[in-house]
Amino acid sequence: MNELELLRSIQKRVPTRDRRLVLGIGDDCAIYRPDGRAEDLLFTTDLMIEDVHFRRRTYPAEAIGWKTLARGLSDIAAMGGEPRFCLLSLAAAPWVDEQWVNGFYRGFLRLADKARVTLAGGDLAHSGRTACDVVVCGATPRGKALRRDGARAGDRIYVSGKLGASALGLKTRRGAAWKRHLKPEPRLSLGLFLRRLGATACIDSSDGLSLDLHFTVPKRAAVPPAFDRLPLTPIGTIRRGRPGLVELDGCPLPPRGYDHFRKP
Amino acid sequence: MNELELLRSIQKRVPTRDRRLVLGIGDDCAIYRPDGRAEDLLFTTDLMIEDVHFRRRTYPAEAIGWKTLARGLSDIAAMGGEPRFCLLSLAAAPWVDEQWVNGFYRGFLRLADKARVTLAGGDLAHSGRTACDVVVCGATPRGKALRRDGARAGDRIYVSGKLGASALGLKTRRGAAWKRHLKPEPRLSLGLFLRRLGATACIDSSDGLSLDLHFTVPKRAAVPPAFDRLPLTPIGTIRRGRPGLVELDGCPLPPRGYDHFRKP
Repeated sequence: MNELELLRSIQKRVPTRDRRLVLGIGDDCAIYRPDGRAEDLLFTTDLMIEDVHFRRRTYPAEAIGWKTLARGLSDIAAMGGEPRFCLLSLAAAPWVDEQWVNGFYRGFLRLADKARVTLAGGDLAHSGRTACDVVVCGATPRGKALRRDGARAGDRIYVSGKLGASALGLKTRRGAAWKRHLKPEPRLSLGLFLRRLGATACIDSSDGLSLDLHFTVPKRAAVPPAFDRLPLTPIGTIRRGRPGLVELDGCPLPPRGYDHFRKP
Repeated sequence: MNELELLRSIQKRVPTRDRRLVLGIGDDCAIYRPDGRAEDLLFTTDLMIEDVHFRRRTYPAEAIGWKTLARGLSDIAAMGGEPRFCLLSLAAAPWVDEQWVNGFYRGFLRLADKARVTLAGGDLAHSGRTACDVVVCGATPRGKALRRDGARAGDRIYVSGKLGASALGLKTRRGAAWKRHLKPEPRLSLGLFLRRLGATACIDSSDGLSLDLHFTVPKRAAVPPAFDRLPLTPIGTIRRGRPGLVELDGCPLPPRGYDHFRKP
């Protein structure tokens, strides 16, 4: 069973009994609509695990704290939301000392301050390996979140920034690419900009573009070549046909990317 | 640094910039009040970690799934809330197979069904040790959540049920006590009952009573001796004085309980 199959099997077993839960499993965030509100609330949760998402010897504590929150904020950005508050669960391995904890929270709270999101609670535990889980709540005007399923035939597909810089950083461990791998900047203002521009769908493509592909804006929208120094590159068009099929130069592109449940 | 000291140091570093965040770090749940709403939303997150909260050899997968959600629901119950939806992050160790995953979700979704709470999303990853983190969102009428800081001098303190049954179960691994350790029943209807009765404060005392003590109802409230077959036992009275000081038969009781950061 791979990650996608597991996700589908969970999805099938979950009843949708609360009409306030507008969108459930399968997108970057869940959408909750409190009764009679002008706003939808977005929720996302992201794991950050020692020896899976980071190694203690190569990652400064501050970068781990920063990146933990950045992962959650990226999901809010990918739905065009404004972050509101977050919760953080931290399971600390025996090697974790006060200095590491301080550095970790320094990085986390520095990004929280920058993104104007408040840490509202969480859980603490010890563990064999350090692991954190962040929950971020964001908001959009009612019905305006950029959902994965919003793309329509004819919509053009764009990517923001330069793909692969973080992977390059991980490989070389130096320069701007390494900095970007350690302290990624969640594209919150780009998400807001795209929502207001009329983008129809948007996703966080960090697990692999062909795996996650649905990033799109309507044909008629005027997309600038860059936003806040981030290049916005058209890479294709949404077509009618079998959902999930991605073609490159007329040939099907297999859905490749990071799968936590694929055996090596 | 122990768990409480760590919590205090994080609390001090967190600015409270969002007036909609009515209650932040330090209680069973955070409280978020969407603008102009008749309802407050409660948020809690709880870790469940292999070799810390459970062992794979003694705990059936289904019990782990059930208990993961029960931990979050207990926090909602302790604030007098109704659960609405939940998110689940699962980091799976290499020994986890399809059968285990199915059992885990069976237990989780069985309790979700019982408590009428919808699984709305989460995250999946692999990991050296299995770890899960559950987020539960609940709701109370505006301003009515049972907060830890609601107790007033003269309020009587009660405990619900029989303390120690779960610990007894862990020790003996048989009978009703073991079943209660494996599949604890979150006291959601008791929480609602206490909120409507006019309780002033309420907490989940699973980390130790003297550590967490603030469970209280006003002197004038008529508390029945039991609710839904759970005994409700008066154990003391809130008095004026130094916050956090607990006396038993006139002698101070030290704040003892489970501390994830205490060195053995």
